[in-house]
Amino acid sequence: MYSKKIQSQLDKKKIDTGDTITVRAKDRIYEGFLMPKPHFGNPDILVIKLSSGYNIGIIPDSIELVATTGSRFDEPSEPEKPKKGDISILGCGGTIASKVEYRTGAVYPSIKPKELRAAFPELSDWPIHSRQIFSLFSDDMNSYHWKIIADEIEEEIKAGSSGVVLMHGTDTMSYTASAISFMLQQLPVPVVFVGSQRSSDRPSSENKMNLVNAVFSASQDIGEVTVCMHADSNDELCHLHRATRVRKMHTSRRDAFRSINSDPIAKVDYRALLFQPLSDYRKRHKQLISKKKFNENVAIIYVHPNMKPDLISRLSDYDGVVLAGTGLGHVPVGAFGAKHVKGILEPIKQLIDSGIPVVMSSQCITGRLCMRVYANGRLLKDTGVIGDDADWTPEVAFTKLSWVLGQTKKMEEIKRLMETDIAGEISSKSPIGGEQ
Amino acid sequence: MYSKKIQSQLDKKKIDTGDTITVRAKDRIYEGFLMPKPHFGNPDILVIKLSSGYNIGIIPDSIELVATTGSRFDEPSEPEKPKKGDISILGCGGTIASKVEYRTGAVYPSIKPKELRAAFPELSDWPIHSRQIFSLFSDDMNSYHWKIIADEIEEEIKAGSSGVVLMHGTDTMSYTASAISFMLQQLPVPVVFVGSQRSSDRPSSENKMNLVNAVFSASQDIGEVTVCMHADSNDELCHLHRATRVRKMHTSRRDAFRSINSDPIAKVDYRALLFQPLSDYRKRHKQLISKKKFNENVAIIYVHPNMKPDLISRLSDYDGVVLAGTGLGHVPVGAFGAKHVKGILEPIKQLIDSGIPVVMSSQCITGRLCMRVYANGRLLKDTGVIGDDADWTPEVAFTKLSWVLGQTKKMEEIKRLMETDIAGEISSKSPIGGEQ
Repeated sequence: MYSKKIQSQLDKKKIDTGDTITVRAKDRIYEGFLMPKPHFGNPDILVIKLSSGYNIGIIPDSIELVATTGSRFDEPSEPEKPKKGDISILGCGGTIASKVEYRTGAVYPSIKPKELRAAFPELSDWPIHSRQIFSLFSDDMNSYHWKIIADEIEEEIKAGSSGVVLMHGTDTMSYTASAISFMLQQLPVPVVFVGSQRSSDRPSSENKMNLVNAVFSASQDIGEVTVCMHADSNDELCHLHRATRVRKMHTSRRDAFRSINSDPIAKVDYRALLFQPLSDYRKRHKQLISKKKFNENVAIIYVHPNMKPDLISRLSDYDGVVLAGTGLGHVPVGAFGAKHVKGILEPIKQLIDSGIPVVMSSQCITGRLCMRVYANGRLLKDTGVIGDDADWTPEVAFTKLSWVLGQTKKMEEIKRLMETDIAGEISSKSPIGGEQ
Repeated sequence: MYSKKIQSQLDKKKIDTGDTITVRAKDRIYEGFLMPKPHFGNPDILVIKLSSGYNIGIIPDSIELVATTGSRFDEPSEPEKPKKGDISILGCGGTIASKVEYRTGAVYPSIKPKELRAAFPELSDWPIHSRQIFSLFSDDMNSYHWKIIADEIEEEIKAGSSGVVLMHGTDTMSYTASAISFMLQQLPVPVVFVGSQRSSDRPSSENKMNLVNAVFSASQDIGEVTVCMHADSNDELCHLHRATRVRKMHTSRRDAFRSINSDPIAKVDYRALLFQPLSDYRKRHKQLISKKKFNENVAIIYVHPNMKPDLISRLSDYDGVVLAGTGLGHVPVGAFGAKHVKGILEPIKQLIDSGIPVVMSSQCITGRLCMRVYANGRLLKDTGVIGDDADWTPEVAFTKLSWVLGQTKKMEEIKRLMETDIAGEISSKSPIGGEQ
């Protein structure tokens, strides 16, 4: 918030963030968008974005409103129920629904989903309706929001929706989508997460391609949670990925999303009405199973040289721990006469002995875990670390453990559920297209 | 150690781990290799590996020695100095120097490097000598061992070595190799790390291919630290990677090692005497610069949803922190009206304000960081998080920060060194073969 002095002037003239204003200061006049007060800094300095794109800070003598902003971020959207058979598009934020961020000069999620129908005429091929659930940077998203998203998907299905598309930021999309895979099982309709690596104001924006292919995928006979993103760097094809298999593997490329240890579910192109399966997937189920409870007290720990044992022993107030180990699932152990090694086997054993499950994953990202090949791995397995033979990503090991801990507190049952394939997160076959 | 009762019998008959023994127990006789006492369990139970491959535990009535083991793990190797022009092969352990582990029934590093000359006649094309520095699982390796490795490399160079090959486990090879890149700059000879994904007893073992190509690479005009590993799943070619660019990207494939955000340095095949450069590299320098001090008090923290702020604030006793953030370099912030988000910006700010550098990297692994695109990223950058625009892996951000903190304690100088390319870890160009 700006200082009272400034805020009262703004309130008096009904000026809000994003409005175009003129500011008089020391006999000069500046025109631009009103920016919100920066996180840090003097609240008496008003910040506006000039037409040059630069922000300036001014101690204002007077402020005048020139024009209000068309769409305001905080304006509530009108919820609406789908007509039977509609494909529902639910907005959760992210670049796919962004325009140039007038607030800080960067990109900020702001377009409401219902505006998309006007923006993308291609969507008129399907009966759709849309509404905004919330608008968040996906890096801010957590299990509180996963629960809301699962509730909203369930509500759409109950109201007659024939498929649900979720617009979501790309940063944590694989976390959210895999979390929903565990919460909502035996889906009667496809649930398709979609995002965009480039904001809609940039010429290379791929959000139309991704969004329309997501809606097209949501019209198919699929009973799984999926992610629809560019298959390559051309605006030609999308891949539909299983939510428990996909991972963002590049910070900025349009084809950043890749299926890990599996082929994508399908190659998709709405323009050619192409839906070409690349691997097996589950069809629409009759009866949804909904198990939405999560435990939010779980940490991912990245294993590395010089790791101090107390990085693990400090976790005694957690309910579960996922290790992103090295190689086939290893950590510094320091057994077998190894000198000058601060092993973390002992603190791991203490966690497990006190009832805190410890689950292995690999920082290699691809490939299957095997804690039986090397002596150090065997010690981990003997200590009770869960995950031998799994081929999940660290992210999915994390969402699964968080979900399992929402279902049971018994170590035996935790272990059993972790080792049972629930949503395609553990494959029994060799990874396609690669030696193991 | 076994119990006194058992150990005294073993000592009396000069029996050591790995020796073939017969054990009498309750009128039955068992023959097999003596195993070390398992980490946990009754020290009165002797463990032997039967010829079937299975281990059994026995309370012995009597024990007899049948045959001693040819090579003992703990036997000291004879150090030797290289003749001028020799290529030095130094053993640090790892699968490349392993045979079937007689100790626990798994694989355990044990072959001494000097045995390699007999095992790989192809090496006779080059003047080599070899010695064991130590034998460790690479998951146990840390900056104590990096220092020893750097000392030994320097010693070899001073004694006239024309190239140094290091046999090393694959799990943390990219940590060690990148660490050596910062410690030993302007190398007068190539330093080549080499490992093997499969143990030498398995038919698909690729250790010969990797080792001989590493020696061949060490004979080239290169003044950098590199990693030589399989280029694909056939036993045909190796890639020579820059140490600050390479990462183990699969738990078990022979071609697990990939250059990240860059092409490999070269395609290598000793049989065809092929050394085909794929990108620029530095030639042999005149004068080695040696800066070997490390700070071992640095942590890598994996950013994830539901991350609790105290996972960061607990790090106030560390000297540096590397974040493996999401996307372009993000963390949960919870600014701009986001609700139900436990942001970690504040604890990050507290670390930085108290003089602890915080460095960004991306869990996407590939791609360049950019904290200027989104409002949340801007807040991180404004808070003083280091790494905007860098294209390093989390591992290299970690080894670099650990090394920089060994050179200086001044925040300004830490920031300057982190932002300066020292060993090819920050590229100013777009990644080859990909859009940014």
